[in-house]
Amino acid sequence: MAYIDLGNDLPGIRGLMAYRPETEGALNALAEILLRDNNNSLSRGERELIGTYVSYLNDCFFCQNVHGALAGHYLGCDIHEIDRIKADFNAADLSEKMKGLLTIAGSVQKGGKAVTSAQVAAVRNAGATDVEIHDTVLIAAAFCMFNRYVDGLGTTAPLDRQFYINRAPQRAEDGYLILR
Amino acid sequence: MAYIDLGNDLPGIRGLMAYRPETEGALNALAEILLRDNNNSLSRGERELIGTYVSYLNDCFFCQNVHGALAGHYLGCDIHEIDRIKADFNAADLSEKMKGLLTIAGSVQKGGKAVTSAQVAAVRNAGATDVEIHDTVLIAAAFCMFNRYVDGLGTTAPLDRQFYINRAPQRAEDGYLILR
Repeated sequence: MAYIDLGNDLPGIRGLMAYRPETEGALNALAEILLRDNNNSLSRGERELIGTYVSYLNDCFFCQNVHGALAGHYLGCDIHEIDRIKADFNAADLSEKMKGLLTIAGSVQKGGKAVTSAQVAAVRNAGATDVEIHDTVLIAAAFCMFNRYVDGLGTTAPLDRQFYINRAPQRAEDGYLILR
Repeated sequence: MAYIDLGNDLPGIRGLMAYRPETEGALNALAEILLRDNNNSLSRGERELIGTYVSYLNDCFFCQNVHGALAGHYLGCDIHEIDRIKADFNAADLSEKMKGLLTIAGSVQKGGKAVTSAQVAAVRNAGATDVEIHDTVLIAAAFCMFNRYVDGLGTTAPLDRQFYINRAPQRAEDGYLILR
């Protein structure tokens, strides 16, 4: 049971969005542009992975499973590989650029001032563009919002992780502007 | 100097928004609905105060001054009173409901799971509605995003606090959909 009466039993952020459609549109528009827009040199899988990692750091079960399943769907790896990346991305088979972006995302999760010019210089040396650095910071910051929204109102979520894996292909097809 | 080349010298989030207009629209739409929509039982001043308090907890100079000046503008108090509220809202001349909402906002700043059912019950006893609790959590969560966006990219901001006070009346008139 969420902390407020949502009038629906939809899980996680979906119940909140159905409860408050006034704010739903802007939140979904932000997710759609940040995570799915085709005009982006980071792949959808890479962007979902950044969101997954931040959700993991924020211990948000719903978000890390929704977006972890999507990251796995796009990147072609299973949930166990996603779990390994979350736990230690430096040991994972990722590019140096992606490791640098995840380092910055991890700093953003702590707080904006935790990002250092040395982290930015390192990821730039690894090939990241300014737009990629910008988008990484904003994706990480946005998940610090989504995670707090979901958990701050005490929403419920299916505990069976297979639920999220099963839904990922349809969500990947629909995007974030059509929620069902 | 921000961590990336913004191609403009606008302060704080305004420079980021001019750099990346693709995400500007959704962010401004969210701020407009959350902080200014007339169909809300929390006043604009109360909502700006929640954002100001969270920005203070996140130590984001730009956001706490922009929104602190707006809160003062709407609530009819000067920046010193806003500073006193930020430092100890329980000692301020605020309703019990507002103190309860700021308590929840402070928990959201720590993390979604820091909000407790006891905090929600207390603020409900003080007269808060479910929508007010919802909006407080989402405003606080959104400022955890805005603050991280502004500081995570190392943006600059005018240090003279009078700059923000001078701009507040025009911003209050224009809203967040017209940035200049």
